[in-house]
Amino acid sequence: MRTFTIFERAFKAFRDNPSLSKLMVVCTVSGGGLLAFAETRPFSGSDSVPKKKVVVLGTGWAGTSFLKNLKSSTFEVQVVSPRNYFAFTPLLPSVTCGTVEARSIVEPIRNIVRKKGINIEFKEAECYKIDTDNNKVYCRSGQDTNLGGEEEFSVDYDYLVIAMGARSNTFNTPGVVENCHFLKEVEDAQRIRRTVIDCFERASLPNLSEEERKRILHFVVVGGGPTGVEFAAELHDFVLEDLAKLYPSVKNLAKITLLEAGDHILNMFDKRITAFAEEKFQRDGIHLKTGSMVIKVDDKHISTKERSTGEVSEIPFGMVVWSTGIGTRPVIMDFMNQIGQTNRRALATDEWLRVEGCNNIYALGDCATINQRKVMEDISVIFSKADKNNSGTLNLKDFQEVIDDICERYPQVGLYLKKRQMRNIADLLKSSQAEKQGTELDIALFTSALSEVDSQMKNLPATAQVAAQQGQYLANCFNRMEECERNPEGPLRFRGTGRHRFHPFRYKHLGQFAPLGGEQAAAQLPGDWVSIGQSTQWLWYSVYASKQVSWRTRALVVSDWGRRFIFGRDSSRI
Amino acid sequence: MRTFTIFERAFKAFRDNPSLSKLMVVCTVSGGGLLAFAETRPFSGSDSVPKKKVVVLGTGWAGTSFLKNLKSSTFEVQVVSPRNYFAFTPLLPSVTCGTVEARSIVEPIRNIVRKKGINIEFKEAECYKIDTDNNKVYCRSGQDTNLGGEEEFSVDYDYLVIAMGARSNTFNTPGVVENCHFLKEVEDAQRIRRTVIDCFERASLPNLSEEERKRILHFVVVGGGPTGVEFAAELHDFVLEDLAKLYPSVKNLAKITLLEAGDHILNMFDKRITAFAEEKFQRDGIHLKTGSMVIKVDDKHISTKERSTGEVSEIPFGMVVWSTGIGTRPVIMDFMNQIGQTNRRALATDEWLRVEGCNNIYALGDCATINQRKVMEDISVIFSKADKNNSGTLNLKDFQEVIDDICERYPQVGLYLKKRQMRNIADLLKSSQAEKQGTELDIALFTSALSEVDSQMKNLPATAQVAAQQGQYLANCFNRMEECERNPEGPLRFRGTGRHRFHPFRYKHLGQFAPLGGEQAAAQLPGDWVSIGQSTQWLWYSVYASKQVSWRTRALVVSDWGRRFIFGRDSSRI
Repeated sequence: MRTFTIFERAFKAFRDNPSLSKLMVVCTVSGGGLLAFAETRPFSGSDSVPKKKVVVLGTGWAGTSFLKNLKSSTFEVQVVSPRNYFAFTPLLPSVTCGTVEARSIVEPIRNIVRKKGINIEFKEAECYKIDTDNNKVYCRSGQDTNLGGEEEFSVDYDYLVIAMGARSNTFNTPGVVENCHFLKEVEDAQRIRRTVIDCFERASLPNLSEEERKRILHFVVVGGGPTGVEFAAELHDFVLEDLAKLYPSVKNLAKITLLEAGDHILNMFDKRITAFAEEKFQRDGIHLKTGSMVIKVDDKHISTKERSTGEVSEIPFGMVVWSTGIGTRPVIMDFMNQIGQTNRRALATDEWLRVEGCNNIYALGDCATINQRKVMEDISVIFSKADKNNSGTLNLKDFQEVIDDICERYPQVGLYLKKRQMRNIADLLKSSQAEKQGTELDIALFTSALSEVDSQMKNLPATAQVAAQQGQYLANCFNRMEECERNPEGPLRFRGTGRHRFHPFRYKHLGQFAPLGGEQAAAQLPGDWVSIGQSTQWLWYSVYASKQVSWRTRALVVSDWGRRFIFGRDSSRI
Repeated sequence: MRTFTIFERAFKAFRDNPSLSKLMVVCTVSGGGLLAFAETRPFSGSDSVPKKKVVVLGTGWAGTSFLKNLKSSTFEVQVVSPRNYFAFTPLLPSVTCGTVEARSIVEPIRNIVRKKGINIEFKEAECYKIDTDNNKVYCRSGQDTNLGGEEEFSVDYDYLVIAMGARSNTFNTPGVVENCHFLKEVEDAQRIRRTVIDCFERASLPNLSEEERKRILHFVVVGGGPTGVEFAAELHDFVLEDLAKLYPSVKNLAKITLLEAGDHILNMFDKRITAFAEEKFQRDGIHLKTGSMVIKVDDKHISTKERSTGEVSEIPFGMVVWSTGIGTRPVIMDFMNQIGQTNRRALATDEWLRVEGCNNIYALGDCATINQRKVMEDISVIFSKADKNNSGTLNLKDFQEVIDDICERYPQVGLYLKKRQMRNIADLLKSSQAEKQGTELDIALFTSALSEVDSQMKNLPATAQVAAQQGQYLANCFNRMEECERNPEGPLRFRGTGRHRFHPFRYKHLGQFAPLGGEQAAAQLPGDWVSIGQSTQWLWYSVYASKQVSWRTRALVVSDWGRRFIFGRDSSRI
């Protein structure tokens, strides 16, 4: 708890004396930069052993983080991705309105891997098939080429790292793909920016009725998650601060509506943040329509259905941005069918990010979820591992030796203890034992003590933070693969014998931001600590600047922010 | 909160009162910028008289320069252009390789006209028909709209200013439109940038033969004018300085070829510049193929014919950029047919930029040429105007009164005198008179004295400089229209009576640059003064920075140059 107190105290200081937050921007920017720039010193691997082939699919957060952290020169790495760059996706909403330029948030992947001194090759292509029998992936160049049939090729792998991300989820709503904008790729953001300008130019044409102008300038955002909310806020600022001056004749007709199927926006955040955001949007005149589901979209209207009343209404629009969460890419779907993981939203992996059922395939980022092992599934083997003398009962001493391994292998145990405010498993066992006398536990008592632990299992959110941590984790595993093969460092194998090679992946939540426009942001930091307001926006600036992948993008993003303060956002239609 | 408030207030001040930010940049950026920027102080016009409607077609150099310099509030101005921005086209070759970003060279036209305080409205649409009978232009929105038929509209005018520019000239060579890139619009430059990266990514794919890789990395530039040469030089720098590092496996296969139908590149420049450029290109390994005409282009090959031998050869390519000069836009062609100017390359105007045959239509920039009146056509009326007493002969004294008018009305006279190194017309007359005794000239002698004068007539080049000067000239005419109606300030009307309202347009050549890559540039300045080398490149930087249309673009362009020096050019494919 000490750290939190420090955090809290620091924030109080920021609130009372906001110039401090600017100081922090400077410190974080330079500090984070140093971290980001720390050059990787390659190990000098011997060339006598044939190198293992690692194929990485995707150059998003997970793939790039893996590549940045990979140091072992015992691998020959091939990267296949339809995008030859890494994009800092949390800034995509800023790109939609020109607060930040598209090129300021991308860095060529070749540039990122170039200075590492290890063998990494990049191919700009899309993987369309994974062949686990032959350890091959089949790829195709995405370019409109004049290459004949030569744009298809296959790549062999010894280890495959799948980090292809996800696509937007339309929930099969009719008309969405044809008539809505998404906000997943850099190109999406650029297209939205052009469309916003287009709408204003179109509404300024003569011969249009007032109603038609209103329709064209009605911007609808579907989905009240952080992306949808941030886009709505950005758009509101863009219209208010920049476009209103340039399009005085139509500025009063512009309207932004945010549709959310749930009862509140930002429902993954603390209630205080949700309430603040909803109030701010109301003040700003952003129309919030919660509890209504989209059932159909055509080229001019979006049809919604009230969840409570079932009432269907048609809303005319000029532009719709669809941001309701993620769905599975077709190639991942195919692959899941192939390996028997049908009817899932994402690839299931174990706690070491290995795809279930495949020995040499890893999946991370948005295309995967960790299928956390349940304690209840393993309760008998856990008991028997603890009961070394096979007495059929456990005393606390027996148990002491395996406690750490249990907590590491089944992190839900730790979460459950934290929730119940217990210090360790001993407390948990004691509490269930309290009813009975004696210090020995049999399997039934043991099971009942742990029976509610699995309720604490949660899927990780589909965020950049999770993907980046997974990439880093996996790279560290690869870096120490030989070493850990000899000296396994992971927890006890409860079902098998010996130990796991590596510690399982453990996500460390560092907090989440929700920029709300008008130089206001909200942040939910670890320990349910909430910060809202202008100083949080400055914290946002400093964190996002420090997290940039290169000094180039850092300099560009910061100068874009400066440019926006001085000159406003550009509205040229290019 | 004090610090924030100051900050905020400062930014708000910058945004609301842009001259402040300009002041700030003045302190930091040095500059000829001051010269380029002239704030316009609108006159306060009376609203009692109905305002004359001026329609401006196009927002390129000519149109924008006209709008920037228009100050009279006696007009109601409508601007129609498919582009809602002004682009600083001389930097387009830099945009193709990312030396400068596209957005750094564009400024929304609404932003340019917003602060003028006079009534200027902008419509993003393309004019597709000019109806001189009804003083109307017909326009159509260029957007892929869901507007039904409402995207078409007409605009009435009292004065029409045509500044629609030109399109690329393919000389009807088959396959050019389908397979070549042009370099006239911002989008063209962005497309070229993407294609260059595409070619390098494509060539890095497996399964390709060495020959195929070579083809893909063969960049062909057609046209050895300043644009083509600058693009070839930029591309060479991009490959050498940036791409070679990122694509080490294919860097040696890249090749640039410049095709020119004439015997030399940059043939409008001084021979020293041409020679320097050709030598530099040879040193750089840019393949120069002069004297060969392109006869056909397909998707992989460009066919050329040697002008001297007639030999036809086929060159495989990955990308072709076509930059061979300008052609007429279809709407201008239609308009020329309508007003009887058939079989011309551009709209003919008189020396006051008025379209011949139309009283209230002006044309400027690349879509127009000034049809300079020949002295020989008017020789008899000039003689009779000079011969006030109708004596049939002129003496120098008679002549003195009309000399200035002749020189202004027929600028070729001045050029001829300069070429012959004479001080004034008196010298010219004397030289032809020398053979005869006496001081009187008859019409025959007068004609023979001026007989070679018309040889000095030249069309103005299709450059930004000409267009900008024409726009400024025309705006000044419009600004003083009422005044000059009352007190004509132009030269004597030789064919009619009285004086012309305005001085005719006179182009002042300020020099021309040819950047040659590798921080080398050539410049041809007035008076045939030639400058070549690195210092010229720095002159180029300073002139181009100072000529920017706004402080925003100036700051962006300069920071782009800095960014390129520090971080290189970005090769992300977006």
